Amino acid sequence: MRVRLNIAYDGSAFRGWQVQPGERTVQGEIERALAALFRGEPVRIMGSGRTDTGVHAVGQVAHFEAPFPRDPAEIARALDGMLPEAIRVWRVREVDHDFHARFQARQREYGYRILATHDIFSRRHGWWPGERFELDIARDLSREFPGERDFRAFATKPEPGESTVCDLRAMEWREVPGGWVVHVVADRFLRRMVRTLVGTVADVARGLREAAEVRALLAGEKGRAGTPAPPEGLALLRVHYDDDDEGDNPPPSPWRFDG
Amino acid sequence: MRVRLNIAYDGSAFRGWQVQPGERTVQGEIERALAALFRGEPVRIMGSGRTDTGVHAVGQVAHFEAPFPRDPAEIARALDGMLPEAIRVWRVREVDHDFHARFQARQREYGYRILATHDIFSRRHGWWPGERFELDIARDLSREFPGERDFRAFATKPEPGESTVCDLRAMEWREVPGGWVVHVVADRFLRRMVRTLVGTVADVARGLREAAEVRALLAGEKGRAGTPAPPEGLALLRVHYDDDDEGDNPPPSPWRFDG
Repeated sequence: MRVRLNIAYDGSAFRGWQVQPGERTVQGEIERALAALFRGEPVRIMGSGRTDTGVHAVGQVAHFEAPFPRDPAEIARALDGMLPEAIRVWRVREVDHDFHARFQARQREYGYRILATHDIFSRRHGWWPGERFELDIARDLSREFPGERDFRAFATKPEPGESTVCDLRAMEWREVPGGWVVHVVADRFLRRMVRTLVGTVADVARGLREAAEVRALLAGEKGRAGTPAPPEGLALLRVHYDDDDEGDNPPPSPWRFDG
Repeated sequence: MRVRLNIAYDGSAFRGWQVQPGERTVQGEIERALAALFRGEPVRIMGSGRTDTGVHAVGQVAHFEAPFPRDPAEIARALDGMLPEAIRVWRVREVDHDFHARFQARQREYGYRILATHDIFSRRHGWWPGERFELDIARDLSREFPGERDFRAFATKPEPGESTVCDLRAMEWREVPGGWVVHVVADRFLRRMVRTLVGTVADVARGLREAAEVRALLAGEKGRAGTPAPPEGLALLRVHYDDDDEGDNPPPSPWRFDG
């Protein structure tokens, strides 16, 4: 029996997604709860992708092969009781045996939240870049990013042999209470790519860098992208699969446009 | 030189306001920073009142007597650099020598935030009481609370000899993104009073208790108030003094009505 999980987590409480010896990670916590639920049989879950330390998720997706059949509603209730408060598995369902959270993902969507004021209550879920941030500049520049192109300049250490071409489908800013959120959508992302895209655009919106330099980078010229924006502003909002339905719309969060 | 501080803090990071040996408290952190700023001379600050462990503040007010004169703007900059991220002193100014943060407070305003969904990103700054919460019921019942009366039934262990009469001036609910906020305004509050008022009204709005029982309590009949609502939903929003000006309006926060 193959099971799909839709997962939200507060990245400030963990050392990222991926299991690491001696570290508290989201994957590790979920696998521990599932092992307890399946009478001690080890369960390995496969996520759609990793998130770095401090990065959040509203709609991470993972799958696992259950050691023996159990009602998905029971799995959901048991996880709700066993997982730490900073993780919530908000949908559990049986899927076809060929479902694969990583290889079948069609599109990934991230949100990055920038704070308009030094709001200490949002410090774990947003980034305050200082007094100056011009939304119009960020928005205009971001319109030039979408397209299928080589994003090598915006990645941290791509794996050897890995393609650095991504199909960036949207990079859209909106005002939200307390600041601004940008949604970034692509078929796939390179390491630290969203944070680097946002950090680079933010440099221009903060008046620290010229837009022309960034345009040159996008056109494939040699040059340096900006420093990645801090992890606490970033959340994996949604991963899209062919068989998604209404129930896969992510729950409300600080990264929601209408929130 | 007497100095007034307007202070925001995230209560989830501290054991309350008041200095306690061996504990990390807001008062303790600020006094440590001020001592460093005044070349090691001990500085004692006086807050408008204590807040319990886990309770937040957007507009706490405190004063202290500076060991020697310093420019308030310099004090503000230095505190900004020295205090932990979870505390922000957002206004510093010199005040008359007879200013007293506790004894001259004319009115105190608290906000309590209730979450409409199990939003893990708001768990430190709001309370999710479960699926059922009827705003209209909470709002109607809360309209009956204001007035000058004995709130003994809504306090935890009043101090011996302390008056339990308070002038409750408002208890007003509004919808905010992700849930509801109630603002509670009075000349003074008893221990755990706001959390007990909110917990009692919430019991009715959740269908756990009859409104008639609460009305009887308000009318002075014997009976039990509800359990105090959890501290993480509560924030001290503002303390009013005769000499306040525009600059004392509290900064944006999750408890703001228009936020």
